[in-house]
Amino acid sequence: MSKKDKNTAILLLHCPDQRGIVAAVTEFIDSNGGNILNLDEHVDRDAGHFFMRVEWALEGFSIPEEKISEYFRTIVAHKFNLSFEVKMKKAVPRVALFVSKYAHCFFDILSRYESKEWKIDIPLIISNHEKFDYIGKRYDIPYYHFPINKTNKAKQEEEEYLLLKKYNVDFIVLARYMQVLSQDFCRRFENKIINIHHSSLPAFAGANPYRAAYERGVKLVGATAHYVTPDLDAGPIIYQDVISISHLDSVSDMKRKGKDIEKIVLANAVWAHINHRIITCKNRTVVFS
Amino acid sequence: MSKKDKNTAILLLHCPDQRGIVAAVTEFIDSNGGNILNLDEHVDRDAGHFFMRVEWALEGFSIPEEKISEYFRTIVAHKFNLSFEVKMKKAVPRVALFVSKYAHCFFDILSRYESKEWKIDIPLIISNHEKFDYIGKRYDIPYYHFPINKTNKAKQEEEEYLLLKKYNVDFIVLARYMQVLSQDFCRRFENKIINIHHSSLPAFAGANPYRAAYERGVKLVGATAHYVTPDLDAGPIIYQDVISISHLDSVSDMKRKGKDIEKIVLANAVWAHINHRIITCKNRTVVFS
Amino acid sequence: MSKKDKNTAILLLHCPDQRGIVAAVTEFIDSNGGNILNLDEHVDRDAGHFFMRVEWALEGFSIPEEKISEYFRTIVAHKFNLSFEVKMKKAVPRVALFVSKYAHCFFDILSRYESKEWKIDIPLIISNHEKFDYIGKRYDIPYYHFPINKTNKAKQEEEEYLLLKKYNVDFIVLARYMQVLSQDFCRRFENKIINIHHSSLPAFAGANPYRAAYERGVKLVGATAHYVTPDLDAGPIIYQDVISISHLDSVSDMKRKGKDIEKIVLANAVWAHINHRIITCKNRTVVFS
Amino acid sequence: MSKKDKNTAILLLHCPDQRGIVAAVTEFIDSNGGNILNLDEHVDRDAGHFFMRVEWALEGFSIPEEKISEYFRTIVAHKFNLSFEVKMKKAVPRVALFVSKYAHCFFDILSRYESKEWKIDIPLIISNHEKFDYIGKRYDIPYYHFPINKTNKAKQEEEEYLLLKKYNVDFIVLARYMQVLSQDFCRRFENKIINIHHSSLPAFAGANPYRAAYERGVKLVGATAHYVTPDLDAGPIIYQDVISISHLDSVSDMKRKGKDIEKIVLANAVWAHINHRIITCKNRTVVFS
Repeated sequence: MSKKDKNTAILLLHCPDQRGIVAAVTEFIDSNGGNILNLDEHVDRDAGHFFMRVEWALEGFSIPEEKISEYFRTIVAHKFNLSFEVKMKKAVPRVALFVSKYAHCFFDILSRYESKEWKIDIPLIISNHEKFDYIGKRYDIPYYHFPINKTNKAKQEEEEYLLLKKYNVDFIVLARYMQVLSQDFCRRFENKIINIHHSSLPAFAGANPYRAAYERGVKLVGATAHYVTPDLDAGPIIYQDVISISHLDSVSDMKRKGKDIEKIVLANAVWAHINHRIITCKNRTVVFS
Repeated sequence: MSKKDKNTAILLLHCPDQRGIVAAVTEFIDSNGGNILNLDEHVDRDAGHFFMRVEWALEGFSIPEEKISEYFRTIVAHKFNLSFEVKMKKAVPRVALFVSKYAHCFFDILSRYESKEWKIDIPLIISNHEKFDYIGKRYDIPYYHFPINKTNKAKQEEEEYLLLKKYNVDFIVLARYMQVLSQDFCRRFENKIINIHHSSLPAFAGANPYRAAYERGVKLVGATAHYVTPDLDAGPIIYQDVISISHLDSVSDMKRKGKDIEKIVLANAVWAHINHRIITCKNRTVVFS
Repeated sequence: MSKKDKNTAILLLHCPDQRGIVAAVTEFIDSNGGNILNLDEHVDRDAGHFFMRVEWALEGFSIPEEKISEYFRTIVAHKFNLSFEVKMKKAVPRVALFVSKYAHCFFDILSRYESKEWKIDIPLIISNHEKFDYIGKRYDIPYYHFPINKTNKAKQEEEEYLLLKKYNVDFIVLARYMQVLSQDFCRRFENKIINIHHSSLPAFAGANPYRAAYERGVKLVGATAHYVTPDLDAGPIIYQDVISISHLDSVSDMKRKGKDIEKIVLANAVWAHINHRIITCKNRTVVFS
Repeated sequence: MSKKDKNTAILLLHCPDQRGIVAAVTEFIDSNGGNILNLDEHVDRDAGHFFMRVEWALEGFSIPEEKISEYFRTIVAHKFNLSFEVKMKKAVPRVALFVSKYAHCFFDILSRYESKEWKIDIPLIISNHEKFDYIGKRYDIPYYHFPINKTNKAKQEEEEYLLLKKYNVDFIVLARYMQVLSQDFCRRFENKIINIHHSSLPAFAGANPYRAAYERGVKLVGATAHYVTPDLDAGPIIYQDVISISHLDSVSDMKRKGKDIEKIVLANAVWAHINHRIITCKNRTVVFS
């Protein structure tokens, strides 16, 4: 069995900046027989806040996997008023895909799933359109069609919520899902819904960003992957990128070129999420690389 | 004498899209003995508008330089309702630099001027601060200090205007000039004032864009060079670029990294302007490459 | 029927630089009732060579589609010693995909095909492995398995050649096909085979470029799409891009990140090819944008 | 006095990967009253090597500045077979500039120096040409002219070496210095000479990279900042970047565009060096961000 096949624990934590945290955390791991494989810490001096990600080998670590959280809380976390999460590298995340009529992000994620570039499970697909039902069948993934209108939205979202619970979903990816989620729904999945917006936020939030970009005459178009919050297109940004455009690009050229940047930006954000590299604090993210 | 030393004429034109313009323009040049060196045309189908830039060798061209505009208007332009300009490659543009207290764009432009990377004249520098007076002396460029406050703004701008006329200035570069120009002043120099804004517009217009970028938690910061119009930070965009940032970058890191992108973006825009590559129409630019 | 649905003709031409070509070509189109939609020309002054791409509406054009080549040769081309091609926008290109065991480029192309982002036909898939036979079945595209070894290579390539002829293939895309094609095969499909190499050529030609990039300690990795010639990894480059990497990236990280840049670079090259935007001359390309 | 004005210590270390290093280093700092401000560590698993950079506040640290190295060696380093350096943030690096006839990198560095964007001293300039003697006078920096030919090279370099010692130079920047340094000279300043090469190495090493890039028909040109070693253009790479080019770019366009990328890449490398962010090992760099 190679090193890569062995399990590791990943600890994500943040708290107000103070002395001695790094020493306390590394002491906790080291004194219990854990070998640190990666350690990243960051102090946001403008905000006076401390962030850390540390990964260690579980082989020879004396605390059982399921007890690590409890022990860490007791021995370290309470001293520093830490917020933290412990993740196991080997746990396979369960992702629900939400999709409408655009194929590019949806197909790209399925390609990464099918080729095992990403180790994820996709227990279900949810859509407000029937269009991609055949894709669900192709991959043997249950495809649920929830048409949404003003009248039925709350009810449909409640059913979606129950399904997501039933399927034990870890997080949701909106693969160009063209429906605004209700504030209640967003609150139920805080930092667990990743959306791709087809502009470099905060520019061109809302509908038709490429048309707006054309009208303003910008020379770059971009995409933004962010966690969804009750405020539309205003959640914590995970990843962004842009491409150069020129006067030669019509709105439809921007849309076409934008597809590529959208799918790559979304994929980078999902990759960071499934590798437990993101800490969110005050509507901003720390994304450890 | 190499080809590069010979003079050429550059014709920039635009009009509502219609048949036969390219043929008429090329026929005008060809039939009068001009050899076309570069021809770029563009039809904006969304707007139904036609743009063209054509450059030809003046050696052997039968119409005298100073008559080209008149002949072109008579023979071609009136038929197509064309807006056009004729420029001579050998004419050296006269640029006024406006500067406040930031050095990076200002020094970068002076470096390109001193090293002859750019063939421009800088007949004067205008500033609302005395700080860089010594730089004016170093380069033997008259440096005019116009302190601006709410009371004297109109009067000071009038004096600046008279100076710019006296020095026969072709265009103005605001090298991080930290004063909003009055609407009247902007109107007097339509498409003749290039500003660098330290964000990727339309995101973070106005003051303190790096602070705002930090607050929003974006993963890119950028810069935008644009022609100044009476609407603040809303003029036609000439060039934009961004760089990736991360949680590691404090506001002061963003400012430091931003300096490099600002000076390069501004330089690209000025280069396009002095090479007569820009046509402005309806608050958008066509920048021929 | 919208403008986009109407057919257009695209003329690609190149020749030693000389006077009057643009005028002659535009006159040919204009005088026969064609409305020029796009015109790009370029003079490579270092090489003394002229390149042009022009597209015009066929509605009202007096020369029948199938006669345009003949008429243009007779009336214009022979005067200027032009090399040229005439393409119809509505013709749907027939593409053969060659694939081995890597999924990312292959799946990406199929996604663009399935979603109709690209209007192409894929009449067959050829592979030296059986792995993706099920993908052929999924898309109802004949999948031909040609295992290659030193002994059978010439024979297998001959059969591939016959198949490609039988299926009337316009061009070939090597979607990370891990077999060097023979020089004879390459010559039979000059400028008709697009390969993606997983480095920014000419750096790291040949096998294992990511390993070599790691060893050299570079801070960028890239991908190159090029036409295949008898010289390995030395054909005319169509498109290249890079991404930043750091010491944090292991060889397997580079491979993973490289997949995204490879598939996007390949897609950009194929897009340029199917839109008749590429002229190849002396192992270099002109790619009109 | 703000936090930024207070002094900090920076420890750079590397060694074969082994357990407990992070804990030992943080314990050393913490138990002696140091408050860790930044900690970055990296394990290169392909090479089995460990790298670390840690910065801590000196206020309240019980070991005197000039003793930190000795104490760290005694208490920690010998246990782990560590290579390490201790740097003080407040120490102002002394940089010798080597220049020939190109202005862009040279002027850019001087601009950063003059504007105090960089806190460095430039005690001398060395050139093989007289061209920029006036610049030395302008900045009141001694300018030494050492014409180099085959006969005098060893002698001239020896005199340069003595000058560099006399001026107590910390490192050297070759700002497009167009002379190959002898192997002896390179060895005397290991990891202390930063060069900018005008290509994305390993592509186009040696002379005339832009001409070679044109001949090969690449679609990107780049620049590489690296430490100089006895092997030409083969030293450890610190920073690289590229820009897109097209068929429109002649060799002279590439040179012009290349200037901007060269000066920015060089500046990024010098910034990393003067902020003690670089560890070199086996011809590769770790550049902490």
